[in-house]
Amino acid sequence: MTVMWTVKVVGMGLVALSLSVELLSRLLRRLRPERSLNEVLFFPSEMACVEHIFTPSSPYSCFCSLPHGVETSFSCLLRHIMSASSTLDLCVFAFSNMDLSRAVLALHGRSVTIRVLTDKHYSAITGSQIGVLRKAGICVRCDVGSVHMHHKFAVVDGQLLITGSLNWTLTAVQSNMENILVTEEPDLVRPFIKEFHRLWTHNDPAH
Amino acid sequence: MTVMWTVKVVGMGLVALSLSVELLSRLLRRLRPERSLNEVLFFPSEMACVEHIFTPSSPYSCFCSLPHGVETSFSCLLRHIMSASSTLDLCVFAFSNMDLSRAVLALHGRSVTIRVLTDKHYSAITGSQIGVLRKAGICVRCDVGSVHMHHKFAVVDGQLLITGSLNWTLTAVQSNMENILVTEEPDLVRPFIKEFHRLWTHNDPAH
Repeated sequence: MTVMWTVKVVGMGLVALSLSVELLSRLLRRLRPERSLNEVLFFPSEMACVEHIFTPSSPYSCFCSLPHGVETSFSCLLRHIMSASSTLDLCVFAFSNMDLSRAVLALHGRSVTIRVLTDKHYSAITGSQIGVLRKAGICVRCDVGSVHMHHKFAVVDGQLLITGSLNWTLTAVQSNMENILVTEEPDLVRPFIKEFHRLWTHNDPAH
Repeated sequence: MTVMWTVKVVGMGLVALSLSVELLSRLLRRLRPERSLNEVLFFPSEMACVEHIFTPSSPYSCFCSLPHGVETSFSCLLRHIMSASSTLDLCVFAFSNMDLSRAVLALHGRSVTIRVLTDKHYSAITGSQIGVLRKAGICVRCDVGSVHMHHKFAVVDGQLLITGSLNWTLTAVQSNMENILVTEEPDLVRPFIKEFHRLWTHNDPAH
């Protein structure tokens, strides 16, 4: 009887132990979600060639005089934008940077759905890339209700927020002190998606 | 013998259970740190009286014509700034908003250590509050190395980051489309603290 009891107790103990381990590991997996991306980039950016970001298949094809193979704040920003696979919602006051324009056009060529919301005054100045994007068939709307549509943010694939002080100009990238914050934190991304939707609808020319 | 065995097994089971519960609750507390603040504010802000933020002891003392008791994006921003208890590091391109200037002066009056880094060109224009802050004895440095010191961020007590597109002007608060992101996320706050320190040292007039 005593031996039987011991066997039963040890057996039940083993079952309980294996169940606890399984339960605990499941709990751990649920409680520790993968860390979301949080990154800050400061400008002015170092000057370096970014050709490899546009043509990753041939990294040594560029013979320009800029340093090659250097990761800079600007190359990181370009990579985040170019990571879009389905949508890019862009809300930016000033857009005259040719490399950033090239990135948006490349995404358009890859059938990424792009919406651009910009400031009506700035979009008309010399050097603005807004006309180039429009001509390429990208959907652009201008803010008509405020003194300035002063935002500088983008949402990539409805998940990644890029926001900060940096306008999409050459001066901002190469000469000014600026910052860009890149985050996947849902509490931060969600309000920007909602605000983009609100502004996009509000500035529908059909209204 | 069998009864003794049963008593022993039940007793050990109870001890094991209480130990497991204690261990699990400790584990949960360690794995689930308190959620850090993540908030987004959009502008233009509704117009409302903010007197109660400056004089919280007498909330009904103001008889101005603006709506009272309304929480707006601007009142939230003011509250975050006024929450400083030890330090405020401010790095802002344009600073002409009188309420924001009053907030900084109030903190200075409460012996909060304030450092202001600003753009040399903008600090000299009519309406800039930089001269007012300097006269009050607040430590101000101007950026001398870049085309524009275009940042618009503040770090409260080395823990809370306030950053976005919004300059500290009346137009930005009342007329423009703008955003402010408020976060305690260490991965986002830390780089801004480091960059402030770098810029503060770099723009030391003694150098």
